[in-house]
Amino acid sequence: MADLVRTGLSLERDLLTRFDRAIGRKGYQNRSEAVRDLIREHLVEEEAEQNKVIVGTLTIVYDHHRPNLSEKLIAAQHHAASKVLAATHVHLDHHNCLEVIIMKGRSGEVRSLGDEILSLRGVKHGRLVITSTGKSLK
Amino acid sequence: MADLVRTGLSLERDLLTRFDRAIGRKGYQNRSEAVRDLIREHLVEEEAEQNKVIVGTLTIVYDHHRPNLSEKLIAAQHHAASKVLAATHVHLDHHNCLEVIIMKGRSGEVRSLGDEILSLRGVKHGRLVITSTGKSLK
Amino acid sequence: MADLVRTGLSLERDLLTRFDRAIGRKGYQNRSEAVRDLIREHLVEEEAEQNKVIVGTLTIVYDHHRPNLSEKLIAAQHHAASKVLAATHVHLDHHNCLEVIIMKGRSGEVRSLGDEILSLRGVKHGRLVITSTGKSLK
Amino acid sequence: MADLVRTGLSLERDLLTRFDRAIGRKGYQNRSEAVRDLIREHLVEEEAEQNKVIVGTLTIVYDHHRPNLSEKLIAAQHHAASKVLAATHVHLDHHNCLEVIIMKGRSGEVRSLGDEILSLRGVKHGRLVITSTGKSLK
Repeated sequence: MADLVRTGLSLERDLLTRFDRAIGRKGYQNRSEAVRDLIREHLVEEEAEQNKVIVGTLTIVYDHHRPNLSEKLIAAQHHAASKVLAATHVHLDHHNCLEVIIMKGRSGEVRSLGDEILSLRGVKHGRLVITSTGKSLK
Repeated sequence: MADLVRTGLSLERDLLTRFDRAIGRKGYQNRSEAVRDLIREHLVEEEAEQNKVIVGTLTIVYDHHRPNLSEKLIAAQHHAASKVLAATHVHLDHHNCLEVIIMKGRSGEVRSLGDEILSLRGVKHGRLVITSTGKSLK
Repeated sequence: MADLVRTGLSLERDLLTRFDRAIGRKGYQNRSEAVRDLIREHLVEEEAEQNKVIVGTLTIVYDHHRPNLSEKLIAAQHHAASKVLAATHVHLDHHNCLEVIIMKGRSGEVRSLGDEILSLRGVKHGRLVITSTGKSLK
Repeated sequence: MADLVRTGLSLERDLLTRFDRAIGRKGYQNRSEAVRDLIREHLVEEEAEQNKVIVGTLTIVYDHHRPNLSEKLIAAQHHAASKVLAATHVHLDHHNCLEVIIMKGRSGEVRSLGDEILSLRGVKHGRLVITSTGKSLK
């Protein structure tokens, strides 16, 4: 665990009261942790904009009866093999599969691979999350 | 101006360094102000979800040559007159107008009025911003 | 008004039924108009990513009793005068003002000006909307 | 695979040209598929707002050296066991783990479980994706 420092913060009394109430509802035990989460969220957004190395998870829902789709999904991941760390597959029902593909790379490359997969016919919905490799969020 | 309090915050040294750098690039003079902005943003998002009274600004781009569109825009605003505070109109070019409609009301009502306007033919693009009446952000 | 073309679209019967129901609730009279709005939204997002010339509207809520804030807001807009087309001011209550600043420029420049204003002390909340100059959405 | 219908769509020639170019860059082979994706995205957003049964994937980055965190993560998932379908764990480096937790339930319940996990100390960053069970996107 990292080296902790303390810093002071001045803010309006009412704002602090409202914030404490809001984070309590979300389950935070501790105000510092809630502020750290806001700070980290801010930093991750910046990393994504700056084409830094990030981790991305692509969630897709697709119809596995669509001809050749499984092959195309595997080919797209294989082609970009250096970027795909893992994939998890869940059988939602007779037709629908959910797959989460975990990638690591520059945010631009990860987005391209995401676009390539989302544009395949039979992929019904999907969304990419960009998060940190953790290194920058010590 | 409101009653200020000081609170302490503990966080990882590296996280603080990165945050200071990030907010410096955005022009912040002061770390407290940057954290207050993150907190306020968090609270405004919550207000919007909870159907509280908010202020909304709807930005639209439309073609003023579209028959009857100006009348429909005025009618929609008039019909919801209690909610529209002001509107600003900018002539972008021969065809295109930009209009910003400033509304106040419960977030659900403001969104409905926004949907009604965005669905009119000739309104090419638009987006609603939800912000606070300021009361809850003292 | 622009030159209209017709194109065919094949899609699942259930998907079409659900879409018609969803857009009806939003007030659309017409399926083509709803699809055009989805397409335009997609294109505007792309323009914003590619640093094209766009129109941005920045909505801010601020406390006009904060010393020097009005001067700083005017200075920031003046400094970037070529980009600010208009600004509208609404008095929300004794303390709080809402201002909508309408800008035109490359998306990167407009974002920078937005960041500069949002980082001023006393600006409690704000959000930038990026839309089109209308030219690309004929 | 579902029952396909054809529908006509009228739109501006320039808009169609730009859309074709934009979707080509994203890898679409086919205009219908791109429009279907926009429609499905629209419907999934609506499902999420209406507290329908959805599938959510929560991506988190955490420090596995944080005392008791692994236990708390397991407890949170266990406590809501009926909602967690699967979880995938990736070792990012000596300190950092990435976990993707796949859940199914009403969007409100899935969001609550997400908030509970994100608020734990040691969870550095995370984001929830809401997607469809696939049933409504035939």
